[in-house]
Amino acid sequence: MSRYKCIVSYDGSDYHGWQSQRNHQTVQETINNVIDRLHGHHIKIMASGRTDQHVHALGQVFHFDSDMKIPEGQWIKAINHRLPKDIRIIDIKIVADDFHARYSARKKRYDYYVNTNAYDLFQCDHIFQLNQKIDLQSIKETSSIFLGEHDFSSFCSNNLTDTPNQVRVIETIDIEETNGIIHFIFIGNGFMRYMVRMIVGTLIEVGKGKLTKSAVIQMLEAKSKTACRYKAKPEGLYLVEVFYDD
Amino acid sequence: MSRYKCIVSYDGSDYHGWQSQRNHQTVQETINNVIDRLHGHHIKIMASGRTDQHVHALGQVFHFDSDMKIPEGQWIKAINHRLPKDIRIIDIKIVADDFHARYSARKKRYDYYVNTNAYDLFQCDHIFQLNQKIDLQSIKETSSIFLGEHDFSSFCSNNLTDTPNQVRVIETIDIEETNGIIHFIFIGNGFMRYMVRMIVGTLIEVGKGKLTKSAVIQMLEAKSKTACRYKAKPEGLYLVEVFYDD
Repeated sequence: MSRYKCIVSYDGSDYHGWQSQRNHQTVQETINNVIDRLHGHHIKIMASGRTDQHVHALGQVFHFDSDMKIPEGQWIKAINHRLPKDIRIIDIKIVADDFHARYSARKKRYDYYVNTNAYDLFQCDHIFQLNQKIDLQSIKETSSIFLGEHDFSSFCSNNLTDTPNQVRVIETIDIEETNGIIHFIFIGNGFMRYMVRMIVGTLIEVGKGKLTKSAVIQMLEAKSKTACRYKAKPEGLYLVEVFYDD
Repeated sequence: MSRYKCIVSYDGSDYHGWQSQRNHQTVQETINNVIDRLHGHHIKIMASGRTDQHVHALGQVFHFDSDMKIPEGQWIKAINHRLPKDIRIIDIKIVADDFHARYSARKKRYDYYVNTNAYDLFQCDHIFQLNQKIDLQSIKETSSIFLGEHDFSSFCSNNLTDTPNQVRVIETIDIEETNGIIHFIFIGNGFMRYMVRMIVGTLIEVGKGKLTKSAVIQMLEAKSKTACRYKAKPEGLYLVEVFYDD
């Protein structure tokens, strides 16, 4: 029996997120069905975390255990050949038996894209279509308040009763604009549900001039589920990388 | 009663082409339903020509007649507000009563995109994924044989019994590669069904080294429905512009 670590890229547009659900097509179920068919029986796959409906991944990570005797380099072909066009395994390798896609993860990187140009129907599933100019400088200045260790209770889902500790560390926030597309990069030790989207949604309001930096500081310090009512749409969000000790 | 000329952009990924069909979602039907609802009765819309399933448009043109008293600048908002996210009217104006989207058209421009880099699942509906390097110089050299006036019987659908004259003029073929994406531009006085896709499909074989320029000359001169068995996939094709006398 070997444990395999897989890195997978997917376009989340046509999926109800990662996590298997009744009556909805999910990324996990789609991949798991392929792995189950290869084995002839059910094999549980375990991801670094969920992604929500319409959220994309460049580098989601999952692991599974298998005793199939496929040469390491052939696994990618065997799985990708059976996957739909919007999901591709980009790396598979054998790892230590105690590797765990979720519990061994040290950091994650999420990126978010905003189009401030005119509506682009060809990119509407891949870049959030704000379609108005916003003040990048005030966004950058305000973004710094989220750096470091904070209780992010104000900036995550109401519904995290199984996550009593909502303190996280964001070590990097980079924001660049290229030809009217704003590209956010977040790296941190963990991101709770909606956390990136609520931070980006709030920063967009700052860029519109509708929120001040001090108002956002108050929202963060409130540690309250009613402090922030902004959440950027899922289609601009990408899980880019999950970092492990190697 | 006024005649309106509309320019429309659409992502063809989720449509069975332009032309209304039973039991299939089409771009024409989707737009026509909106215009019908605005009027409260059926209004026939007439395009410059069809596009096939999964083919896109940046500048398809259609016309319709209406006696609705909507200010000219309000038409776009009224229609776009009711259209799905993958179809947008980009211009609408009153034209002469004898303007006809199809019969007044003088030239058309079609573009085709080929990805010679690794498979890109985020672009698989918008750029043909060849995913191998090909010889651009031999493609450019061979493409010149299609310029000017030719009987393109070998390079269009078998099933054009209502198009006895298959002579067309291609005035421009531009081919450029940027970061591994090959971009073809075709401008001509008319393109029959599959014509651009069969020319591009043939040129790709030339780029792979599987066909010579002289073999392609023979195919063109054969004027035969069995001469060419290559047809590039629809997802790389865009109707970019329809030209009229103005």
